[in-house]
Amino acid sequence: MHILSGKAVFQVPKALAWSWPSRCLSGISRTIQEVFDNPPETNSTITTHGHIKSIRTFKNIGFIDITDGTIFQTLNVVLSNPEDVFASGKYKVGQSVSISGSWVQSKGNQKYELQYDHHNPHHSIKLIGVVSDDYPIQKKVQSLSYLRSVPHLRHRTATLASILRFRSRVEQHAMNFFAKNGFTKVAPPLITSSDCEGAGEMFSIEPFTKADSKEKFFGQDAFLTVSTQLHLEVLAPSLNRVWTLTPCFRAEQSNTNRHLSEFWMLEAEVCYVENISQLTDLVEDSIRSIAKDLKTDPPLQAGGLNDLTKARYSESEQLLVQQRCDSLLGENRWPSITYTEAIDIINSVKNKGRSKNRMTWGDSISTEQEKWLAGTHFQSPVFVTDYPREQKPFYMPLSKYGLDKERPTVACFDLIVPEFGELVGGSLREHRHDELHQEIIRRGMNAESMQWYLSLRQNGTVPHGGFGMGFERLIAYLAAIENIKDISAFPRAPQICPC
Amino acid sequence: MHILSGKAVFQVPKALAWSWPSRCLSGISRTIQEVFDNPPETNSTITTHGHIKSIRTFKNIGFIDITDGTIFQTLNVVLSNPEDVFASGKYKVGQSVSISGSWVQSKGNQKYELQYDHHNPHHSIKLIGVVSDDYPIQKKVQSLSYLRSVPHLRHRTATLASILRFRSRVEQHAMNFFAKNGFTKVAPPLITSSDCEGAGEMFSIEPFTKADSKEKFFGQDAFLTVSTQLHLEVLAPSLNRVWTLTPCFRAEQSNTNRHLSEFWMLEAEVCYVENISQLTDLVEDSIRSIAKDLKTDPPLQAGGLNDLTKARYSESEQLLVQQRCDSLLGENRWPSITYTEAIDIINSVKNKGRSKNRMTWGDSISTEQEKWLAGTHFQSPVFVTDYPREQKPFYMPLSKYGLDKERPTVACFDLIVPEFGELVGGSLREHRHDELHQEIIRRGMNAESMQWYLSLRQNGTVPHGGFGMGFERLIAYLAAIENIKDISAFPRAPQICPC
Repeated sequence: MHILSGKAVFQVPKALAWSWPSRCLSGISRTIQEVFDNPPETNSTITTHGHIKSIRTFKNIGFIDITDGTIFQTLNVVLSNPEDVFASGKYKVGQSVSISGSWVQSKGNQKYELQYDHHNPHHSIKLIGVVSDDYPIQKKVQSLSYLRSVPHLRHRTATLASILRFRSRVEQHAMNFFAKNGFTKVAPPLITSSDCEGAGEMFSIEPFTKADSKEKFFGQDAFLTVSTQLHLEVLAPSLNRVWTLTPCFRAEQSNTNRHLSEFWMLEAEVCYVENISQLTDLVEDSIRSIAKDLKTDPPLQAGGLNDLTKARYSESEQLLVQQRCDSLLGENRWPSITYTEAIDIINSVKNKGRSKNRMTWGDSISTEQEKWLAGTHFQSPVFVTDYPREQKPFYMPLSKYGLDKERPTVACFDLIVPEFGELVGGSLREHRHDELHQEIIRRGMNAESMQWYLSLRQNGTVPHGGFGMGFERLIAYLAAIENIKDISAFPRAPQICPC
Repeated sequence: MHILSGKAVFQVPKALAWSWPSRCLSGISRTIQEVFDNPPETNSTITTHGHIKSIRTFKNIGFIDITDGTIFQTLNVVLSNPEDVFASGKYKVGQSVSISGSWVQSKGNQKYELQYDHHNPHHSIKLIGVVSDDYPIQKKVQSLSYLRSVPHLRHRTATLASILRFRSRVEQHAMNFFAKNGFTKVAPPLITSSDCEGAGEMFSIEPFTKADSKEKFFGQDAFLTVSTQLHLEVLAPSLNRVWTLTPCFRAEQSNTNRHLSEFWMLEAEVCYVENISQLTDLVEDSIRSIAKDLKTDPPLQAGGLNDLTKARYSESEQLLVQQRCDSLLGENRWPSITYTEAIDIINSVKNKGRSKNRMTWGDSISTEQEKWLAGTHFQSPVFVTDYPREQKPFYMPLSKYGLDKERPTVACFDLIVPEFGELVGGSLREHRHDELHQEIIRRGMNAESMQWYLSLRQNGTVPHGGFGMGFERLIAYLAAIENIKDISAFPRAPQICPC
């Protein structure tokens, strides 16, 4: 089309005129999932793209299984003259190919397969991308920890690709839950001049090349957020119920199965709540809703529970994936106990009253003890509420019944799940100005820099509260994956940022 | 509930047993939107929460309009004895209140209202949160630029709250489009050791308190991402079609209506595409789908187009909001011209062949010229493709028909929309190893640090491409808002990071 002068008139031919959804994405070749979902006519010739997952010969029949990552299921290409095709040795696992063949009903496990006849002029195998001799992804089982050493190729494996699809699905179910329940999804800032948790484990940021090294880019010190809660508290009174799913950052020197320097956090903040039980009900409802939606996903749903399960190698792993969702869908509501009750249970039941390992009020509950409480004792997810004030941040109000001056507790909760430990933490927020101001002073914090936050309590304040859930932790629990570095596509941790 | 020893049995009473959705969020008071959606029985007494939007008296009847931010519409409370209630002067705009009254059919504009009778013992007005004397949000029209000076309170205004709800809605429609079309939503890292655009305008990060100042936290320099594209290119071959919506960061010294130091970018990457038109079709389909879904949202949908429109003060603003969606839904597909054709059009039509302001091949097209092309000349969104290589990053392949050695162009496009300019940028990616390597060398980039990216081209490479769309820009265009600082809840720009 050449337009040299005057106003051009662009008339799209009627046949191409836009109509939803038939025309949508017609310009892009169909995925393997789409082909399975809407099978072509049998015996028609189709062209499909993907990576070679395996090559084998069995009784003079050759097989090339290809995947394009849209679903766990591979498309099996069946070759009647494998010796002609495989003789050259040019096909290898990992290569990308384009294969044209006949779409036929299968005699094997799958309903359909692609038949390739070397002598049919309409059939072809086109090699698109070769692999290097040291291509690290092979058909045999490879450990997740080995795969972490090839961060740019590891997602070609069935397991890690299925986790990515599953995560996408969980996010969609979460989105649906909050939308259905009147929450507005918001985007609080990741760059902030405030420290939400007061723990000081923040990353600071500055331009890489500073024009004038004396002037700060933002006019003051700026950090990456450790939690978006303080900003959600700004937005909640304007919208009543808000939630977000954003990266958060912690500059902790911990390199464990459960920690990342960059992780995604699902946070919600709700107005007009005055009791912890309103928040724990919300948390339970949201997680039950996600688990229920995952259970009822259709079997061929990309990213569904079935898709995730099939991509696991051993039967015991597959069983565990199924059990994890079920463990959240028990008939009874999840129990809720106070921190003080938890300490009593650990001392009397776990330690059988022995003085060895006896916990004292004020001790932190360890991950191992959390796993025991939920996994062994309650055999259910369990909420632990009203922790000692000194274990928690400044913004939590004193518990209504915790006004014991010797043992001050705050109106907060953690959700603890079997085999895993803490998944969610939340609290009411002190919405009264004077009480909050006093606590900031008591902790020796800088009240001046928190003036914007304090002033929310002087301008139409409402009782409110909320929670934060580590999103990689939720996925790791649901997917029965040990290390959250396998949930994050590109995990960041001390000494780990290879690309 | 007290548990001192032994395994506790938690039996939830049958009446409370969990069943979806009736029990969901029953613990939290109903929002004004929920009350309008499912009105209570008329003449029943209900309690509702919100902020006072306005107080007025008319012919011996008093009105308190309250909002809780879930929808533009206010709930009107009608008082039969206003003098008794208002005499004390204690009620003010911005206060949060809890009001109990009778739910009755309204004689006014709204279908229902809350009737409050000072002498009815079941009726009450409870003041929850007062406002300071200098509470800055008032009923009169306040300019968006003034409101930016009160970043923690400005979202209490109808306009800014409606933008937040609208943004949430647009995100949901985007999510639906990509899910429906076989895309997996992924979470690429924001902390990276690579510079995607090669422009060097990055923020670097390091722990605020360094334990050992000699050792780098990540073992090397680490930056905030300027675009997640390189990492999407890792994930695309594993999943075929990926998209993401994440913050990106630019340390540019620009403080304009169109720039933020922290902004959200919607990026997508698709395998097996070989022509720019496949990508421009995808971009057009995605934006048309979002616009169409917004148009067909039910009128009372929180965050819907109607909700957004009503929150604007002047009729001309309201009309513009409606027109913006329509402008994307024209019957004809959007035109596509090359950069070279665009220069010709600007010289021959805009400049009428005069030598003054004549553009030379290789010049950048300015925002003002983009607005003219889309707004005046085509009166339609328009794709401009095949820009000069030297204007674009290293990863773009040469245009198929642009192999003019004097004027090398690359296979890329920008989407330009009327009154606004660039909204989307995208390209094919050079998927051949040797060509990519040569370009990296030609530009004097460090090939060693890009080894992980280069090696994707040696391991099952496939032709692919993608695009990035500034999410605040999309919302600003749709919502007809001039400055994207009013789309971002907490805008970050040089010298701006107040909380």
